[in-house]
Amino acid sequence: MKRVSVIGIGNTRYGVIKDRSFLDLAVEAGKKAMADAGITPDEVEAFYLGNYAGSDFINQNHLAPYVGAALGLRRDIPCTHIENACASGGSAVREGIVAIGSETAKKVLVIGVEKMNTVPTPKVTEFLAKAGDWEHEVKVGYTFPSAFAMMARRHMHQYGTTREHLAAVTVKNHKNALLNPDAQMQKPVTMEQILNDNRVVADPLRLYDCSLITDGASAVVLAEKGTARNLSKKPVDIIGFAQANDSFALYQKDDLTRFDATVEAANMAFQMAGIEREDIDVAEVHDCFTIAEIIAIEDLGFVPKGEGGPVTLDGVTSLNGKFAVNTSGGLKAKGHPVGATGVGQIVEIVEQLRGEAEGRQVKNAEIGLTHNLGGSGATCVVHILARG
Amino acid sequence: MKRVSVIGIGNTRYGVIKDRSFLDLAVEAGKKAMADAGITPDEVEAFYLGNYAGSDFINQNHLAPYVGAALGLRRDIPCTHIENACASGGSAVREGIVAIGSETAKKVLVIGVEKMNTVPTPKVTEFLAKAGDWEHEVKVGYTFPSAFAMMARRHMHQYGTTREHLAAVTVKNHKNALLNPDAQMQKPVTMEQILNDNRVVADPLRLYDCSLITDGASAVVLAEKGTARNLSKKPVDIIGFAQANDSFALYQKDDLTRFDATVEAANMAFQMAGIEREDIDVAEVHDCFTIAEIIAIEDLGFVPKGEGGPVTLDGVTSLNGKFAVNTSGGLKAKGHPVGATGVGQIVEIVEQLRGEAEGRQVKNAEIGLTHNLGGSGATCVVHILARG
Repeated sequence: MKRVSVIGIGNTRYGVIKDRSFLDLAVEAGKKAMADAGITPDEVEAFYLGNYAGSDFINQNHLAPYVGAALGLRRDIPCTHIENACASGGSAVREGIVAIGSETAKKVLVIGVEKMNTVPTPKVTEFLAKAGDWEHEVKVGYTFPSAFAMMARRHMHQYGTTREHLAAVTVKNHKNALLNPDAQMQKPVTMEQILNDNRVVADPLRLYDCSLITDGASAVVLAEKGTARNLSKKPVDIIGFAQANDSFALYQKDDLTRFDATVEAANMAFQMAGIEREDIDVAEVHDCFTIAEIIAIEDLGFVPKGEGGPVTLDGVTSLNGKFAVNTSGGLKAKGHPVGATGVGQIVEIVEQLRGEAEGRQVKNAEIGLTHNLGGSGATCVVHILARG
Repeated sequence: MKRVSVIGIGNTRYGVIKDRSFLDLAVEAGKKAMADAGITPDEVEAFYLGNYAGSDFINQNHLAPYVGAALGLRRDIPCTHIENACASGGSAVREGIVAIGSETAKKVLVIGVEKMNTVPTPKVTEFLAKAGDWEHEVKVGYTFPSAFAMMARRHMHQYGTTREHLAAVTVKNHKNALLNPDAQMQKPVTMEQILNDNRVVADPLRLYDCSLITDGASAVVLAEKGTARNLSKKPVDIIGFAQANDSFALYQKDDLTRFDATVEAANMAFQMAGIEREDIDVAEVHDCFTIAEIIAIEDLGFVPKGEGGPVTLDGVTSLNGKFAVNTSGGLKAKGHPVGATGVGQIVEIVEQLRGEAEGRQVKNAEIGLTHNLGGSGATCVVHILARG
């Protein structure tokens, strides 16, 4: 199929944004991405919106034409809402790539958005839990913090992962977020502070192990390779993409320390891209909890199983390490507006590959990867991008 | 792009199905469609699930891998949930076509499903209203019955449409449903009964003007034209498809008697198919209310504006009329499991074009059309199908 490039990107600030509506956020990100691409709304030929739970958080569903109309998109184009839990954004980008591949659209706008700070935290947890198996898990008390706590406990048991290893993810991602003006968390934190903090969320996970409740939106404009309009911006090509699935509930998994959907999606994406793991300079991975980043870098094949914690503690994934992980601050510190996350990951990698990441720029970054996970790992979307 | 055929179809019964879960229904329809296509779950290379409000009705979101895993689909394929209000099913089929067009998948399974009879009727109305503009309409009392009542009132004012015209839609669709064993409504009704029934829902709409609250699922298997496996089944080709959008809220429309998204989608689909309106033998249109069928056959270009009511009363759209509309019974009498509807419309047209519609078979049906509308008309999806 046609090769696809990212020709425009846009982010809102991520954070607790009380004075901006869902629509404000989505429109801001969309307009920025179109401006960055040097295109007008009239040039968009298909629109995909990634959102997880607008229906719960703002009582609004049917979200794609809701945003499309506010952006002034053309009336003769498809506007479609993609929901795949926390991987909604990644799946929306994937559908955009497929649309260009099919030649039904030359330029595609993809926006991911979530407005979460509309309800108290227990309600957020309840809404998010709908991405797990309600009938067999959630009804009996399953929430995502408890799920990832079980994975962390098992990973500790099986591989000797420690609280220091988990904390190293937090320290790194908070540090990166300080270099990202769009990030929600603008607070450095030391290993000592974390290890002394006993605000348990779901043992062994403490407050500092958890990602944030975030309002925000991110957007990209996709086009067939070679059609970038705004020549001042370097196009970035999507050289690999894959989406895989897995058993739906956590209790159905063979191994609590591995997400098979990640392993599968990574293998497919690397095969499509025709590159090796060591070719990746920078990666945004789905660190909804610290343990999730450790599992992700293992499942993606960057390090052997069990070594995710030690390599993080050793600085291998730091900004100046062998391969930088979550330079944006990740879900942990940039924030996790659920439906936006997968799109925001692409935005970060494009900034890195364009050399526009300023204080958090990875030197000579040429190839980057995004990893977006949904639910109890039942969906995983991986994209591999390269300088055009 | 590659031409696409429907090579398998499957429906559950539509109705109030208390003893079957959401998952049961989706799996039944999916299995039937794969069996009809003569393929195994292993052959499915992409899966799209159309659903509107599983998150509200059954507290379950992240629905595509939920159903995909239960069906035993492969782990290395994308499972993606499409939500476009009442047009979720039509949009899901469209994404399936695009996936084949992109050559990322050779065979695609699309299931539409909704389980609605889990909450009392006022809750159903509230959940459905989230497809309208919550902030500007629903908060101040807007519901879909009231919206379509306003359209009906305006259509009556502008074109002289009468309650007899509306009732003619009901009489016809109930009659057709009696010939459809999968239909929810199995009750003949006369013009006199309807006109004497004063159970007002939203004036001028009475109970008999409204579609049903339905549990059900429908599924199709799509493949590149020419790859049909089960030779005993005639393949049906998708010769035109289009999705358009419109202003989101009803108050933003220029004309309450017209859905611009339908006009636009129909024009595009007919242009792609290279056929004329009079070539259509049978159509499934989105009769969420009786007035919606009248507006649909006008907007689709089958009859001039204002003549939808009179032609229906004259029998032009009856089973043996000039072109048959809603042979399945339509949303009005077959039922309207929201996310399933757009897929179920395709199933009906395929049955008609294969000559398998038994008692409700339209003689020599060669070309058919489906029309699936979302929200206050902000999304419309049209498909045109022809005997392969």
